[in-house]
Amino acid sequence: MRDRARRVIAECRRIACMTEEPGRTTRRFLTSPVHDVHAHLCARMAALGMTIHVDGVGNLHGLWQPREESGKRLILGSHIDTVPNAGAFDGVLGVVLALELVEIAQEMALPFSIEIIAFSEEEGVRYGVPFIGSRAVAGALDPALLDLKDAEGVTLEDAIRAFGLNPEEIVDAALSEDELGFVEMHIEQGPVLESEGLSVSAVSAIVGQKRLSLEFTGRANHAGTTPMNLRQDALTAAAEWIVAVETLALQTEKLVATVGKIAVEPSAGNVIPGSAQVSLDLRHPDDGVRATSVETLLAQANAIASRRRVTLKWKGQSDQPAVPMDERLTAFMMEAIEAAGYPAKVMPSGAGHDAMVMAARVPTAMLFLRSPGGISHNPDEAVREDDVEAALQVGRKFLGRLAKESC
Amino acid sequence: MRDRARRVIAECRRIACMTEEPGRTTRRFLTSPVHDVHAHLCARMAALGMTIHVDGVGNLHGLWQPREESGKRLILGSHIDTVPNAGAFDGVLGVVLALELVEIAQEMALPFSIEIIAFSEEEGVRYGVPFIGSRAVAGALDPALLDLKDAEGVTLEDAIRAFGLNPEEIVDAALSEDELGFVEMHIEQGPVLESEGLSVSAVSAIVGQKRLSLEFTGRANHAGTTPMNLRQDALTAAAEWIVAVETLALQTEKLVATVGKIAVEPSAGNVIPGSAQVSLDLRHPDDGVRATSVETLLAQANAIASRRRVTLKWKGQSDQPAVPMDERLTAFMMEAIEAAGYPAKVMPSGAGHDAMVMAARVPTAMLFLRSPGGISHNPDEAVREDDVEAALQVGRKFLGRLAKESC
Repeated sequence: MRDRARRVIAECRRIACMTEEPGRTTRRFLTSPVHDVHAHLCARMAALGMTIHVDGVGNLHGLWQPREESGKRLILGSHIDTVPNAGAFDGVLGVVLALELVEIAQEMALPFSIEIIAFSEEEGVRYGVPFIGSRAVAGALDPALLDLKDAEGVTLEDAIRAFGLNPEEIVDAALSEDELGFVEMHIEQGPVLESEGLSVSAVSAIVGQKRLSLEFTGRANHAGTTPMNLRQDALTAAAEWIVAVETLALQTEKLVATVGKIAVEPSAGNVIPGSAQVSLDLRHPDDGVRATSVETLLAQANAIASRRRVTLKWKGQSDQPAVPMDERLTAFMMEAIEAAGYPAKVMPSGAGHDAMVMAARVPTAMLFLRSPGGISHNPDEAVREDDVEAALQVGRKFLGRLAKESC
Repeated sequence: MRDRARRVIAECRRIACMTEEPGRTTRRFLTSPVHDVHAHLCARMAALGMTIHVDGVGNLHGLWQPREESGKRLILGSHIDTVPNAGAFDGVLGVVLALELVEIAQEMALPFSIEIIAFSEEEGVRYGVPFIGSRAVAGALDPALLDLKDAEGVTLEDAIRAFGLNPEEIVDAALSEDELGFVEMHIEQGPVLESEGLSVSAVSAIVGQKRLSLEFTGRANHAGTTPMNLRQDALTAAAEWIVAVETLALQTEKLVATVGKIAVEPSAGNVIPGSAQVSLDLRHPDDGVRATSVETLLAQANAIASRRRVTLKWKGQSDQPAVPMDERLTAFMMEAIEAAGYPAKVMPSGAGHDAMVMAARVPTAMLFLRSPGGISHNPDEAVREDDVEAALQVGRKFLGRLAKESC
């Protein structure tokens, strides 16, 4: 297994060289280096005796069937697009691990097939809309998205054709009825497993997310001539609220709340800010807690604003309910973790994944691998050999557990 | 006096139409509409029997001498350049009031001359350096400034020649030894007089000013996957400090402290800010209090940063000591305010003025007029007829008081 783990890491690093930008890894949906990744993965799939096809939205599918076919399929996979200046493991690792597991499965006499899907689009970089690949597989791709344009004005429909595919075949990407489930292995992209000294974890749910933008409006004024008690400073109002956001999140278990953007007007060192715009990103695995937290923070923002004689406007930008993973498959994953000799751990995912989209269509589970330093979306993104070996051990146990169940 | 007040306001509004930009008032140093202002003021000066000249840096001087000349001169004036999209009163009002006072003085048998100076440059808009006009009069204009270039690449030296002047004559602009003092009347540009229901105030000092920029550096990370207790959020650190800045200033008499700029990186709604840059503008009439306040705030910034495991870097950008006004002339101004029937009020100036530069060379006093709404550097800038009348009454009493002293 140690050799397999090394090979997985080496494969991910090799694929990271297939990029739009020399010297750094940037591989957007349907760009030319995706052909290279497909070719590379196809060679491996072919060597494993898999049946290969690329669907109408660019997802690469490889089907491995055991000698005694049952008609049932387990789907394994993740995405092969990246953010700009990405690391080598976000997404790709799940595909390469799946290939290794197919090789492992060949000695297991499984009563089901394994289909690997390398999803074409997850990050949302090229068209501003994420999960295009998995939406198609889940049968949930809105055809209106075909008219989206990228930064160069190329529509999604034209990009699909330019890649050599037929957008009319997108409908055929949708899953049929004979899937046992979908399992995605992915780096955690956060510091939790590292801080707890753990290699891997099952995932309980993709947390729900609320995004808001708020604008505090006071009165821009001269920084020298306006006494403190006569100010209506939009930035000090925003600052007080940013501290309140952090305080609530620290006090509320599993809540994360982030102000990632702030902009003031007129933005001069000697002028009191007349307006301050801030973003809020708030996530919690429980939709009720999430809604209550948003209400609390808006009430606090209103109270701060009125005490300071500034006005507050806000608007919601997205409101994504939590997506629980399948209980049965997740219980199998926990059993597999323990059977492989690791502490049983389950945690929510703070980030979105293809698993979130697939869960609406098919029983879905995830396995997280520790992210050294919690670093992701960054060339320093890494994964430990130990942890890749753990994921392979857990994957093998999971296949065995599912096989027992499916007999 | 009411008619005089109306005329002063009408004159200021007429001069506001002499502009580089149709429809709004923008009149930078040595631009073409300054010729129009000079012509307009010269006509009035000539009618008052004044001796007129323009010095090497574009200041317009008008000298009125009484029948019995003593050789002593009182200087009155302010600046005639403006910020972009300015109001009608910042600067110009002090020049137009001075003209009215010369007319009033003609019936007073004063034992001194009055020189009006319309300073050519105070705002620092064209060359990024303020007070060019008064620096020349104070004999403190660094000749190296002649090489400064404006946004179009025109040097100050070329701009002076293009205006029809000779830069070699700048040295002649410097004051001789026979001045009684300099008095500048100016709108307050802040809300203090309005909030206290007062028309006018003497000025005790131009406050000292410290400007700093600070950078908090934490670690950019995923807003969904990074638990609150494992974050190093640069923005929440900055926000906590911004609230501390406000708290100290509210607790410290006469202190004003402003964070006018803030910028975070990477500035995405779903990424914890890895860095936050903020500005600080801190002003106090007492240099000791100013220095202590800066120290306190930097210590608080350091404490906040280290508790939050973020780093702090800061650099000073300017450090301007407080400039006290002349005690004797300011006492005369207070007496004049009371003698004119207004409550004696003295306050520091939070903004810089030509008086700050002149004070280094000659005894200097200022009179502030109430700014409705505290608004300045804005087309809504205004002045009340009552308050202009008050300034004229005070000015007359001041001239009388100085005459008594000078006999």
